[in-house]
Amino acid sequence: MPDQDPIALPFPAAALRPTRADALGPWQPGAGQRIRLKELDPDARPLSQGDKAGDKARVEALAAELDGLQELFYADGRFKLLLVLQGMDTSGKDGTVRGVFSRTSPLGVHTVGWKAPTDRERAHDYLWRIHQQVPGAGEIMVFNRSHYEDVCIARVRELIPRRVWEQRYAQIVDFERMLHEEGTTILKFFLHIGREEQLERFGKRIENPKKNWKISDADYSERPLWDDYTAAYEEAFRRCSTGNAPWFVIPADRKWVRNLAIAEIVVEALEKLRMRFPEPQVDMDEIRRKYHEAEEAHDG
Amino acid sequence: MPDQDPIALPFPAAALRPTRADALGPWQPGAGQRIRLKELDPDARPLSQGDKAGDKARVEALAAELDGLQELFYADGRFKLLLVLQGMDTSGKDGTVRGVFSRTSPLGVHTVGWKAPTDRERAHDYLWRIHQQVPGAGEIMVFNRSHYEDVCIARVRELIPRRVWEQRYAQIVDFERMLHEEGTTILKFFLHIGREEQLERFGKRIENPKKNWKISDADYSERPLWDDYTAAYEEAFRRCSTGNAPWFVIPADRKWVRNLAIAEIVVEALEKLRMRFPEPQVDMDEIRRKYHEAEEAHDG
Repeated sequence: MPDQDPIALPFPAAALRPTRADALGPWQPGAGQRIRLKELDPDARPLSQGDKAGDKARVEALAAELDGLQELFYADGRFKLLLVLQGMDTSGKDGTVRGVFSRTSPLGVHTVGWKAPTDRERAHDYLWRIHQQVPGAGEIMVFNRSHYEDVCIARVRELIPRRVWEQRYAQIVDFERMLHEEGTTILKFFLHIGREEQLERFGKRIENPKKNWKISDADYSERPLWDDYTAAYEEAFRRCSTGNAPWFVIPADRKWVRNLAIAEIVVEALEKLRMRFPEPQVDMDEIRRKYHEAEEAHDG
Repeated sequence: MPDQDPIALPFPAAALRPTRADALGPWQPGAGQRIRLKELDPDARPLSQGDKAGDKARVEALAAELDGLQELFYADGRFKLLLVLQGMDTSGKDGTVRGVFSRTSPLGVHTVGWKAPTDRERAHDYLWRIHQQVPGAGEIMVFNRSHYEDVCIARVRELIPRRVWEQRYAQIVDFERMLHEEGTTILKFFLHIGREEQLERFGKRIENPKKNWKISDADYSERPLWDDYTAAYEEAFRRCSTGNAPWFVIPADRKWVRNLAIAEIVVEALEKLRMRFPEPQVDMDEIRRKYHEAEEAHDG
């Protein structure tokens, strides 16, 4: 009755940079490339089909496709998929998971929402807790926030000396390269909203009594640091967007545009893996014989 | 930018035995009650509204309701919910998760599919790995298989001496009572299919090439042990169905009947928790002032 363990051999992740994502152009920083978030319009609509209704229908279709791909991904059991979501507060990380994986069974998508480290976590290097949660073979894992907080917040808030966070960019590149070489497809998304849009979303939290509990004083104490966070992220893109583990900046002022772009990129990355249903691990003739025996025993 | 940690104080789980589930009658064994699975028709339809279309619509409505309840559950942050799914092979554990949580974000439902223990897990007591995965405050966790394998398979397959598995029933009751007293609502479901229905589902695995990889020789080697498994489960119900952590036997020959019964029970259990959106943790007047300041700074 116990299930077969999935094949656990590491398998090289395919070259994964989605070509459909080429339409993103400047939104997909190459290795070492310097980008300026201020020059990217958070209200832009790359990959859009033109109108909101059409885009939403496309997101639905992609979500359904993703459901089928996930099943195959699990069955294939050779690849691992890690999605990283980062962004300023209210940028829509939760909404992205809900929108993109609306058709996928909770069995098929694991998520971790990273919070401030516990005492025990803080007693280890910052990648210790992250490493424990990376996906296994056949698993899709979504990180809602990630180890990038350990270069961005840690830097902006001066939680650690410059010397320490400076080293982390290279450490992260090394860590992600190892994960990739051991069979993990890594896609990292920065949800890019405008300051104005954030303020509007804060306003909605104030208006809606069911959302009041989400309000934190930090909402307003972090806003003046917007430019510092922007600089920290820009440096993370420049130093940690690699062929193995690319960063994508996603315009996120409009939710359906955001979901569309991310769903397109994820679906295309999965399609590029040459997945297949595994060969049966049993002798099918033998199984058919056993099946008919069982049938006869039952009828008899 | 880091989220507030949810309130982590343990909170007594409400008396949770759903009254709607009273309609289940003999399907819900009380503490110490002996039931005979053979006397329960796996094709029965307790909680059914009468016709398949009506039942399916009801499952959809419950799934939508569950989505809203999960959001409140997370916001409330005081309760923990653990669902346990057990059943013979092909009984539909995966399908249940997909059907009942079809409308819930993957962020809101965590799942663990328990497999044979690893060497490291085997080096500990059988509850060691289980305990690590129980839900935290505000979390919903679904166990696809569970520690009940450690009394059922272990007993039928004679993996451990009788003396050892005999002790485990009481250990499990103690463990689950502790979880309950520390704020966990526990609902345990046994998906009850007939031997004939199982054979039919095995037949479909043979016919469908995309399902061939799921076939295992164990499918047929376990079937002759059906009665032994039945006896082992019956004993688990008798000894481990408690007011704190009840077992529900769910007729599972029809998928929508199964999903309907489980969704009804889960929704009712959540409704019975007196959940509420927490009071804002900030001074709302102060926040409104900050908001308007930010607005002016932006316009200025």
